[in-house]
Amino acid sequence: MSYIGKHISSLATPAFIVDKEKVEKNCRRMLDLAKSNGIHLRGQTKTHKTVEGGIAQTGGTKRKVVTSTLVECEMYADQGFDDILYGFPFIQSHLERVFALTERLEEFHLMVANQEACQMLEQSAPPEGKLWSVFLKVDCGNARAGVWWEDDEAVDIVKFIQGCQNLTFQGIYAHCGNSYGAHSISEVERVRDSSVEMMVSLARKLKEAGLECPHWGVGSTPSCSHASNRFENLTEIHPGNYVFYDNQQVGLGSCGLDDVAGKVLTRVLGHYPKRKQMLVDCGFTAITKQGIGSQAHPKMIAPVDDHQDLMLSNMTQEIGFVEPIAPEGSIDFSLHPVGSLLKLIPYHSCASAACHPTYYVHDSQGIIQELWTPCRGW
Amino acid sequence: MSYIGKHISSLATPAFIVDKEKVEKNCRRMLDLAKSNGIHLRGQTKTHKTVEGGIAQTGGTKRKVVTSTLVECEMYADQGFDDILYGFPFIQSHLERVFALTERLEEFHLMVANQEACQMLEQSAPPEGKLWSVFLKVDCGNARAGVWWEDDEAVDIVKFIQGCQNLTFQGIYAHCGNSYGAHSISEVERVRDSSVEMMVSLARKLKEAGLECPHWGVGSTPSCSHASNRFENLTEIHPGNYVFYDNQQVGLGSCGLDDVAGKVLTRVLGHYPKRKQMLVDCGFTAITKQGIGSQAHPKMIAPVDDHQDLMLSNMTQEIGFVEPIAPEGSIDFSLHPVGSLLKLIPYHSCASAACHPTYYVHDSQGIIQELWTPCRGW
Repeated sequence: MSYIGKHISSLATPAFIVDKEKVEKNCRRMLDLAKSNGIHLRGQTKTHKTVEGGIAQTGGTKRKVVTSTLVECEMYADQGFDDILYGFPFIQSHLERVFALTERLEEFHLMVANQEACQMLEQSAPPEGKLWSVFLKVDCGNARAGVWWEDDEAVDIVKFIQGCQNLTFQGIYAHCGNSYGAHSISEVERVRDSSVEMMVSLARKLKEAGLECPHWGVGSTPSCSHASNRFENLTEIHPGNYVFYDNQQVGLGSCGLDDVAGKVLTRVLGHYPKRKQMLVDCGFTAITKQGIGSQAHPKMIAPVDDHQDLMLSNMTQEIGFVEPIAPEGSIDFSLHPVGSLLKLIPYHSCASAACHPTYYVHDSQGIIQELWTPCRGW
Repeated sequence: MSYIGKHISSLATPAFIVDKEKVEKNCRRMLDLAKSNGIHLRGQTKTHKTVEGGIAQTGGTKRKVVTSTLVECEMYADQGFDDILYGFPFIQSHLERVFALTERLEEFHLMVANQEACQMLEQSAPPEGKLWSVFLKVDCGNARAGVWWEDDEAVDIVKFIQGCQNLTFQGIYAHCGNSYGAHSISEVERVRDSSVEMMVSLARKLKEAGLECPHWGVGSTPSCSHASNRFENLTEIHPGNYVFYDNQQVGLGSCGLDDVAGKVLTRVLGHYPKRKQMLVDCGFTAITKQGIGSQAHPKMIAPVDDHQDLMLSNMTQEIGFVEPIAPEGSIDFSLHPVGSLLKLIPYHSCASAACHPTYYVHDSQGIIQELWTPCRGW
């Protein structure tokens, strides 16, 4: 059955629905932020993993993206994208696929997070006429992958890379994911400013050591959702979640509820007035359990769009429980007959979108215009 | 690249690996439990959602399964299965697909959880020569979907169904999911026994009211993983998770760690000795965040197979953090070089399996024998 041209209310549920105008607005705003600072945007594609989302993130150029998986790299390469960074720590088992991508693209970059990875690459011949092009992953306080920005190790690895025959150095890359731990916009801005400062400082240190450093950047949607002239001091930014945004970003002040572009459409299955609950056809396989204990209400998994007194508060595999946010609140069941629709606002759109084999992309009237097929697997 | 005949160590990671002998043993044990009690097993397919898993659950008969989604019903119907129960509350939007399944199968059953659903069905003509065959979902204390076993509503709905022209009544169905809240095997057994008692009592009440009740059963893997002569009082059981089991079931005493058949294979990406961590290529898209706060260690998401001093304690989208379980513990990094493999034991295999487009099914030596392709979506 083709849903194109039909209203979202005709969809089988649960379904991941995407407001195209909001995606375009979110993507345009991020491109403008980069442009106004005279730097590049290298959008992270992990939230949507679609060709169409990548086109929106690059403003149609299909140049400069960063991905979270090899299948994303391969999908984008197949669709004419170039200047693709596989933003995941390189290990030996990636070699065969990474070779093929290096061979077929003008610019394909790898991420290295330690010297072992550089040594492995140096010991493997790149495709004829090419070098392994690498970014060094730097930790600016988020304690994930990468070298601590202040450690001598960072300079040592870059020196090692620049002494290699088979490697070429692109620059340093940080994901300031610690911005997600902030409790206010000013705290997000402090994380952003300190991350920018650390990367600028490391880039300077490399230059002072006689080492080239073409690019240095930070990324994370909270950090990149507020204008700042600090970005001028970088060469690129690489946020990703902003394409859809979500309720976590609303809580962090990155966007308003009205900017959230991806939601889960669900139907009411039954009324349970004794328990003050409605059951809906959205279980953890359609939105994930992420969100519990991380939002204003301790039981909230997802707020209900247009009914902000209601929340998704629990789930089994295929069924969700909707109840009033306020303990003394109630549900007006007459507004929500069995079979009627609700929209849930994901806490973490990267996780919720990953549950869905198709995104139903609609206009502002709810008419489905496109189906987007994300890549899955690794 | 074909992985058949190769060792699991050749797989791209993360990968969901399934021990075929363990699946067969788990499925055989459940079939034997039903047989020894003279009742039917109607295995729930939601954990694996594969044809091969359905064959193992039915002992090759391809008869009597219960599913969680319509796509599962359609996949099993395509592959010659019959006597399929769509174990999800019927709503009007399912009608078209449910009509097709009723038409093509000898026996296709629906679940109803309220009188509205029965009314909707009664108002829709079933396929020529068929009736809408329904089970009534009953709540025996797990507070999910269905009618409370003691309420007059249960009898009223069955009376309504038996007065309908287009419906035929199959029986009553309960998922004793409250067994998951138990803290000991004896507590699981109490939940099982009380659920059995409630269903037997409702079946008796229906008969006393002059209403037929061909089938009455309970299901849930914890309840059905211990032998009991109480099952003789039922006509069927319908657990599902036992096909793979998982660390939640180990904690509930349903199985031993050695019975867990589905695991996530992952590789070490880097060593972070200052943080006493290794990073691995298993993020929340490969195992989900379910498990935090629900296991012996408050930070544990998944124990590491064969290294039971280590656990997966946090994740980003594509990266996992492995650390010692004991705060004073340490990691012997020499045992885990960059690129080496670990196996993670999912807390909830239904959720973790749902992340994977393929399951790599291996023998006891780790040689891949089959690829299973689960159905996805709804």
